[in-house]
Amino acid sequence: MIIFGVDPGFAITGYGVIEYKGNRFRTIDYGVITTDAKTELPQRLHILSDRLQSLLEQYKPDALSVEELFFNTNLKTAIAVGHGRGVVLLTAAKAGIPVFEYTPLQVKQAVVGYGRAKKEQVQYMVKVLLSLDSIPKPDDAADALAVAICHAHSFTDVRIKK
Amino acid sequence: MIIFGVDPGFAITGYGVIEYKGNRFRTIDYGVITTDAKTELPQRLHILSDRLQSLLEQYKPDALSVEELFFNTNLKTAIAVGHGRGVVLLTAAKAGIPVFEYTPLQVKQAVVGYGRAKKEQVQYMVKVLLSLDSIPKPDDAADALAVAICHAHSFTDVRIKK
Repeated sequence: MIIFGVDPGFAITGYGVIEYKGNRFRTIDYGVITTDAKTELPQRLHILSDRLQSLLEQYKPDALSVEELFFNTNLKTAIAVGHGRGVVLLTAAKAGIPVFEYTPLQVKQAVVGYGRAKKEQVQYMVKVLLSLDSIPKPDDAADALAVAICHAHSFTDVRIKK
Repeated sequence: MIIFGVDPGFAITGYGVIEYKGNRFRTIDYGVITTDAKTELPQRLHILSDRLQSLLEQYKPDALSVEELFFNTNLKTAIAVGHGRGVVLLTAAKAGIPVFEYTPLQVKQAVVGYGRAKKEQVQYMVKVLLSLDSIPKPDDAADALAVAICHAHSFTDVRIKK
């Protein structure tokens, strides 16, 4: 199963593509999609949509995994990230890829085994689980890989329960 | 000039299409795009995007006009509306239609001539300016027509200043 994790943001959207097969992970790709702050918002969303669509066509994932938005930040940031996240969900739907949403608690639980784990612990476990030489950078890419791992584990759990 | 006004919402997105020519308005169309709450969010955004795209192809507007988001409501609603608004901006960008954003204050100022006008006053002036028999329903459609009128007036102002 190929899983495409996304960490939607305002100016930067992280992504991480992994394969999960026979209880093992393989890292396929990760990185970020950035858009220039000087570009107008509709055009930035267009760039985000086009790049994401290309990546989805390239890797043909079985699932797209994304965090639910929980904010302690201000409304303006929440709305801005909401714009980007809406575009991510739309692009997945247009590509016919099922979308799965997880809370930050679920991601931490799945990756570290502890729902209140710190960001550094999550990143460290991403490195370990994916057998990477170092923690993936930037943080947005690491977070995207984490939510992809979360889907792999959760999906398995669901299947075992059935 | 054909102007396409949009009032993005969570389950319901209002739109209003007007022509502004020689200081006169002509109402072309208005209505709402709704999506079923039982449908999953990515699919709802897909439906919104498809319907909006059809309307933009049908009316070929010169501009899309939309309110900036200012919320006194909770974060969850803000994020949800942000999703829909992001899809609206993306769809306009993909169709190559320039997007103009106005604050609620600017809309009221342009439609009623008074930035602190009440919702009812705005709706009444929409009816008067567009020579309609009654106030357009639902509110989302009336709000979309108001932001379209705002662009007509603002655009003219800009040209006069130059």
